[in-house]
Amino acid sequence: MSKPTTDHEIETAAEALAETLEVNFAPDGLRDAAASVEDLIEAGDEAALDEVVAGTHPADLAALLGVLSHELWPPLLKRLDIARISDLLEELPDHLRDDLAEHLLPQQLSDAVEEMASDDAADVIADLPEDVAQDVIEALPQEDREEVETLLAYPEDTAGGLMQTELVSISEHSTVDEAVGVLRSAEEDVGEIFFVYVVDDDNRLVGVLNLGALLLFKGHRPIRNLMKTKIHMVNPEEDQESVARIFQRYDLVALPVVDGDGTLIGRILHDDVVDVLQEEADEDIMHMAGATAGEPELVYTDQLFRIAGVRLPWLLATLAGLAVPAVLTSGFQVSFPHMKELVPFVLVIGAMGGNVGSQSATIVVRGFATGRVDFQNLGHFLFKELVISSLMGLACGAMSGIVSQLWHGNTMLSLTVAISMFVAIIASAILGVLVPYFFRLVNIDPAIAAGPAVTTIDDIVAIGIYYLVAILLITA
Amino acid sequence: MSKPTTDHEIETAAEALAETLEVNFAPDGLRDAAASVEDLIEAGDEAALDEVVAGTHPADLAALLGVLSHELWPPLLKRLDIARISDLLEELPDHLRDDLAEHLLPQQLSDAVEEMASDDAADVIADLPEDVAQDVIEALPQEDREEVETLLAYPEDTAGGLMQTELVSISEHSTVDEAVGVLRSAEEDVGEIFFVYVVDDDNRLVGVLNLGALLLFKGHRPIRNLMKTKIHMVNPEEDQESVARIFQRYDLVALPVVDGDGTLIGRILHDDVVDVLQEEADEDIMHMAGATAGEPELVYTDQLFRIAGVRLPWLLATLAGLAVPAVLTSGFQVSFPHMKELVPFVLVIGAMGGNVGSQSATIVVRGFATGRVDFQNLGHFLFKELVISSLMGLACGAMSGIVSQLWHGNTMLSLTVAISMFVAIIASAILGVLVPYFFRLVNIDPAIAAGPAVTTIDDIVAIGIYYLVAILLITA
Repeated sequence: MSKPTTDHEIETAAEALAETLEVNFAPDGLRDAAASVEDLIEAGDEAALDEVVAGTHPADLAALLGVLSHELWPPLLKRLDIARISDLLEELPDHLRDDLAEHLLPQQLSDAVEEMASDDAADVIADLPEDVAQDVIEALPQEDREEVETLLAYPEDTAGGLMQTELVSISEHSTVDEAVGVLRSAEEDVGEIFFVYVVDDDNRLVGVLNLGALLLFKGHRPIRNLMKTKIHMVNPEEDQESVARIFQRYDLVALPVVDGDGTLIGRILHDDVVDVLQEEADEDIMHMAGATAGEPELVYTDQLFRIAGVRLPWLLATLAGLAVPAVLTSGFQVSFPHMKELVPFVLVIGAMGGNVGSQSATIVVRGFATGRVDFQNLGHFLFKELVISSLMGLACGAMSGIVSQLWHGNTMLSLTVAISMFVAIIASAILGVLVPYFFRLVNIDPAIAAGPAVTTIDDIVAIGIYYLVAILLITA
Repeated sequence: MSKPTTDHEIETAAEALAETLEVNFAPDGLRDAAASVEDLIEAGDEAALDEVVAGTHPADLAALLGVLSHELWPPLLKRLDIARISDLLEELPDHLRDDLAEHLLPQQLSDAVEEMASDDAADVIADLPEDVAQDVIEALPQEDREEVETLLAYPEDTAGGLMQTELVSISEHSTVDEAVGVLRSAEEDVGEIFFVYVVDDDNRLVGVLNLGALLLFKGHRPIRNLMKTKIHMVNPEEDQESVARIFQRYDLVALPVVDGDGTLIGRILHDDVVDVLQEEADEDIMHMAGATAGEPELVYTDQLFRIAGVRLPWLLATLAGLAVPAVLTSGFQVSFPHMKELVPFVLVIGAMGGNVGSQSATIVVRGFATGRVDFQNLGHFLFKELVISSLMGLACGAMSGIVSQLWHGNTMLSLTVAISMFVAIIASAILGVLVPYFFRLVNIDPAIAAGPAVTTIDDIVAIGIYYLVAILLITA
């Protein structure tokens, strides 16, 4: 990249870069942009850097920091005022937030947190090292401190952990003009205010008014006659998955949170819910592959030892479980010395058991996560799986029987293989339904039931069935 | 449930039921509510049914229809006016929408579609049987018909397929008062209007104004001075995943869609994006388990033959693939008649290869879906997997070597098992990265690469490695 010379050129180059960042935030485009920024830093092109930093959305800046090496952060950070640092902190993923905090003075950090909405402030503080977090909380003004401490008391994965205390509420006795007056005096950015909440004299939520109504009705109209009184609301204890489902089902942008008395204490915004959905899907998928138990983000970082550390336990558990099929295989060798042809099918039947079990478990697990499966329809679900797996078992049993017959021409062997395959597929499908139900019953994440550790159980059961059928048919 | 007698009791019972529906939309609660409705229908309690239908959110009504048997639909449907039928059609999942359409007269169906926002109308029409769809389109008023036909021309999974044409736009030469006037004359429900789009004389998007600004500024202020000019927008061809990521990254509620000239042609709303995210996660998860290739919703229906039909191809493909490990196992029996102890480890090493490959592939696949992995960092990713899998391979190799030694006390065997396990785990991890990259390169959904069909390849490679190591060490 050649160094721009005139002011106009500087501006154009920086604008183009900012545009690249924003439009091409696919990692490919991001890395190109990062390379350009590196060039600017090396060339010491202060004016162009100013332009880039000023013209880039905090979310893009966060993505940019994510791919730039940490030594290149300071020349960018020194160009940011507290408001922009505050935005940046909010946008950074957890593992980079700590790194940014280390680049800041304690005062900068507290000031940045003070600028945030209460929910973001609580999230950022919760992720800071404990001593740093304590300092930040103590540096906050009284009111902010109390709000943040209240929010920190709620578990992260509940409505209380998602909500922010910033909202606009008005008395049910107000008029449209008075409501507009309240809005005007609200300090928050009105861009994120979609509704005005209407409360009674005890601050209990009694209605909701959208901004459109305030624009379209005459100023003297009483709010009571214009507000919507059928309102969706949740308690702060509500689980975040269920909050996400309420947003999804009713197409909400914001959801008020009330305590046990109906007192309005906060609101949850749409963007937090999108993050929850993403996070829950991430977690389920990673669990289902036995890839990580904790923060899915970790596997995309460069902390190789920690990544190996979260993936290894799943593998070792599976490896330990595989001792059983190994012993069963050895059992085949001992029990049927005259029919070695049985042995290669051990692996086939075991793997098929695992595959079918993983299909069924995945359907149940995803059904739980999205509210399409529940405890009450267990019986119905089992019946369905029984029919479906019988059909699939017939097809797979027939196919493996035929292949066995073509390979070895031993009818007894082929019959054993076909029958075992049929029964093993049905058994694995049933297990694939029952295990996640059981896990949910005892409060283990059912997603684990679709993972390799449990697939190994299906493996074992399938091979056990094969062993039994072989004993019945072959030695008979 | 005893039959309520007075008007007041009827109202209370119905309200309680409506509340149950709304609050407990977990399937358990839903089925309880459905049972109550069944009771009301059987008891012929018309007044209470009226209350229930009137007091229930269309999304809840849709969920209720989903668990009620179809014969019970008519007593509920006859209580709905066209506006409610329209809402209900929008809310129903695809497979129930056709069923509802069959319960309606052609005229009712056209009227209901006419009531919908353009994007919902297009979605509903796209899912109807072709001849019914044609009739509905022809019954629409000229303007609606043109809008819907325009939208139907965009692929469903693009910005054009998500957008609606309903929006409020004003000229850049307007004042605040004029903008409010335009809003007032907008026919659409203002509840879903969060922004007013500002266009130039050629209808090109030049700015965005939120409703708050209209409330807070004086009537004579020119819009040009108040609007935001840095706007996120997309072209109608943009892929829906990328649209979802724009919403997510910038915390948007609405995103304007412009054509190649910058002309404003529609807007996409937050709730559609939540559905896209859910749908994409559903699809990925189902692909990863080899559970279905098409609509994930299918596996939660009672169409057992069709479900078996989508799951079976994955199983048969895997079964065909498993012929290779079976032959390799047989090869072990032939090549090493003096060391039968090698055979049980075939299954263990194969399964571990599959497990590690599935971990790596899942991380890559989810990384693609969420924009955390791309082509440019393939080299870096491979290097990371090499290090991580070496660490995991060391642990698993050591563990299996030790167990083998304790079991058989044959050092050569244990060495063979340990080395094979180590190499197989590394090879499977590398394959787990390369296969999804390759699938993406040739435009196959990479999620399939984390599924059983490809895990079988890891299986084969792992066992192949074991065979080679055994030939080198044991016969040497």
